Amino acid sequence: MNYQTIQVTELEFALQVTLNRPQYRNAMNLQMVQELRQVFAQLENNLKYRALILRGAEHHFCAGGDIKDMAHAGSQMDSESSPSSNPFYELNRAFGTMIEQANHLPQVVICLLEGAVMGGGFGLACISDLAIASRQCQMGLPETTLGVIPAQIAPFVVQRIGLTQARRLALLGQRISGEEAVNLGIAHTLCETPAEMEQQLKHALMDLKKCAPQANATTKALLHRVNSDNINTLLDQAANDFAQAVVGPEAMEGTTAFLQKRHPQWAK
Amino acid sequence: MNYQTIQVTELEFALQVTLNRPQYRNAMNLQMVQELRQVFAQLENNLKYRALILRGAEHHFCAGGDIKDMAHAGSQMDSESSPSSNPFYELNRAFGTMIEQANHLPQVVICLLEGAVMGGGFGLACISDLAIASRQCQMGLPETTLGVIPAQIAPFVVQRIGLTQARRLALLGQRISGEEAVNLGIAHTLCETPAEMEQQLKHALMDLKKCAPQANATTKALLHRVNSDNINTLLDQAANDFAQAVVGPEAMEGTTAFLQKRHPQWAK
Amino acid sequence: MNYQTIQVTELEFALQVTLNRPQYRNAMNLQMVQELRQVFAQLENNLKYRALILRGAEHHFCAGGDIKDMAHAGSQMDSESSPSSNPFYELNRAFGTMIEQANHLPQVVICLLEGAVMGGGFGLACISDLAIASRQCQMGLPETTLGVIPAQIAPFVVQRIGLTQARRLALLGQRISGEEAVNLGIAHTLCETPAEMEQQLKHALMDLKKCAPQANATTKALLHRVNSDNINTLLDQAANDFAQAVVGPEAMEGTTAFLQKRHPQWAK
Repeated sequence: MNYQTIQVTELEFALQVTLNRPQYRNAMNLQMVQELRQVFAQLENNLKYRALILRGAEHHFCAGGDIKDMAHAGSQMDSESSPSSNPFYELNRAFGTMIEQANHLPQVVICLLEGAVMGGGFGLACISDLAIASRQCQMGLPETTLGVIPAQIAPFVVQRIGLTQARRLALLGQRISGEEAVNLGIAHTLCETPAEMEQQLKHALMDLKKCAPQANATTKALLHRVNSDNINTLLDQAANDFAQAVVGPEAMEGTTAFLQKRHPQWAK
Repeated sequence: MNYQTIQVTELEFALQVTLNRPQYRNAMNLQMVQELRQVFAQLENNLKYRALILRGAEHHFCAGGDIKDMAHAGSQMDSESSPSSNPFYELNRAFGTMIEQANHLPQVVICLLEGAVMGGGFGLACISDLAIASRQCQMGLPETTLGVIPAQIAPFVVQRIGLTQARRLALLGQRISGEEAVNLGIAHTLCETPAEMEQQLKHALMDLKKCAPQANATTKALLHRVNSDNINTLLDQAANDFAQAVVGPEAMEGTTAFLQKRHPQWAK
Repeated sequence: MNYQTIQVTELEFALQVTLNRPQYRNAMNLQMVQELRQVFAQLENNLKYRALILRGAEHHFCAGGDIKDMAHAGSQMDSESSPSSNPFYELNRAFGTMIEQANHLPQVVICLLEGAVMGGGFGLACISDLAIASRQCQMGLPETTLGVIPAQIAPFVVQRIGLTQARRLALLGQRISGEEAVNLGIAHTLCETPAEMEQQLKHALMDLKKCAPQANATTKALLHRVNSDNINTLLDQAANDFAQAVVGPEAMEGTTAFLQKRHPQWAK
């Protein structure tokens, strides 16, 4: 595939997607949203890839939404449009759809947070399974300082760090560093230099390699249900998932390898 | 208005409410609950005020519920009252109604936590959008040490810091300091002296001033829906909110000011 | 009662249960699950015991599920069993039932986390009201490295520390120390030595002793409803609970003792 706003590279069992509009600090326009959705759609049923790495070109993750796209949407607007059919609705909603799609990928999603991680970039960071933050990154939700709202982003921030911290960040527009991002649980680990970030990524991929791909995908889907399902329904379903997994090929290979003191096939 | 248990002062675009029964470390009686509800009702539709500052007189926030009120409620109790019509029910429930009202105000609620922040004071602190804690403050839920329960308070503590920490605080009666309050996410920032607290408040108000009032109110309402609404319903509604906001006067002013490299009108 | 996999001892107002298969680092087999369920059933209506202390023999908490049990379940499996009637389903589901039972005990549950706290041991730690962790303990969810899933465990991990951290731990198989367990909120306090752990336990029991048993049980049940019930329903119910508690014997004794400047009877 030929993409104009992103770069896609294959790293052994991982797919690396680089947001690639460095002249705009990788701000997200509608085309980038559409290209990301194409990549994610290919990943949805392809466990050959066990990780998705999301990062930005030239040491910025993503500066948020592209204002020019918004102006363009405005120029297309019919003055009689209802809110739900107006182009701003579609533009905004597409962004949330893309984040939800990323959130539910069966792969482990790893975000590398450098430089600007603002608005929509912040939202995308919030659905990662592992986020590595540089100490110098700048994260924030500046929307209301422009008179607009972090509409498709705020829900993912609340899911990530809870209402308490989300309220402060969304309503005061304060920026936080990588260190505070780790303290709040937006990111999991902190690094001091780009080289250390690559090193941490490498170690995370080594850890991930030990985990069986299908077991990981099943576990991730289970985790996503915890905050919405009734606990007994959830535990019943989880026991079903377990009963299926334990007689499947991964469990056979995993337990055999364990007894034979060797690495299972997926970890080689 | 003339209040007996609180002091209300106007600070530019903020309303400051001081709990003012210092001889009881600002313990909350029914009259204070009623006076707070009157103030909150005035704020509900008045975005002229963009912040509510809640604090206590003489360097205590609030020592909890006033025991004398409880005794008075007891003296009014008919021995045949059903639980839901007994005066303790009404007294207790009124307190929760007041906290919920504060929780959903369209303004940014800032709590200044000094000295005693116990029981109901702790509950009130838990609905702030920003809480600044002095290192020396003492927070806790002592109810079960008196044989009663933190009935209208515990839900807000769980929403604030999660079940894990709420269980320990409510069931062991342990007190925590400002530092631990920040670590647990009850408060956002720590200060060492009253002067530093005023300084932090001033900076927070400067940050807040940059945020458009209506955009902030819409964002806060959105944040409140995250933990109850289905994610797709929520994102649909959020896109609607966005589509309305982006063609409204605040977004017009905000984007124009941004392009003209000047402050928007609300930030002047 | 005569137990084979656990030791049960009475410590004044607490019941101490020691997982006792030290040759397997206290790994949990079906018999241990059943014996724990028997103990918990006895506690459910017996507020003579105000705390349950869960710990492991010989400085390991619990290394997870016993693989031999799984092999045995496999040997009993009829090739035509449906997933929900197969022995793996029953074995797995029984474990979740046991954790839910522990989660809802009216006593305060205190876990002492030393050595291996893996898989099912991690899950059990996640339902404690107070967890004390040794700095050297090792916690983790290694299931997917064996090709299986943390089915009955993951939900309790998410409830404990949120989706963000649970995703990383479950999908990368990373192990964490006592210090990180405290940072993530899995445990509440950290200790350096076994002696310090006993000291912290002693202090926690002294704090607990000041709390009225029935008030604590009512409060714990209330806390459990926060994440599932509508806030207004919850506050109504809580006001009912309060109105009942305040006219009950514990509140009478607690307030009288307070006015007489003596310890209430339950704290003697």
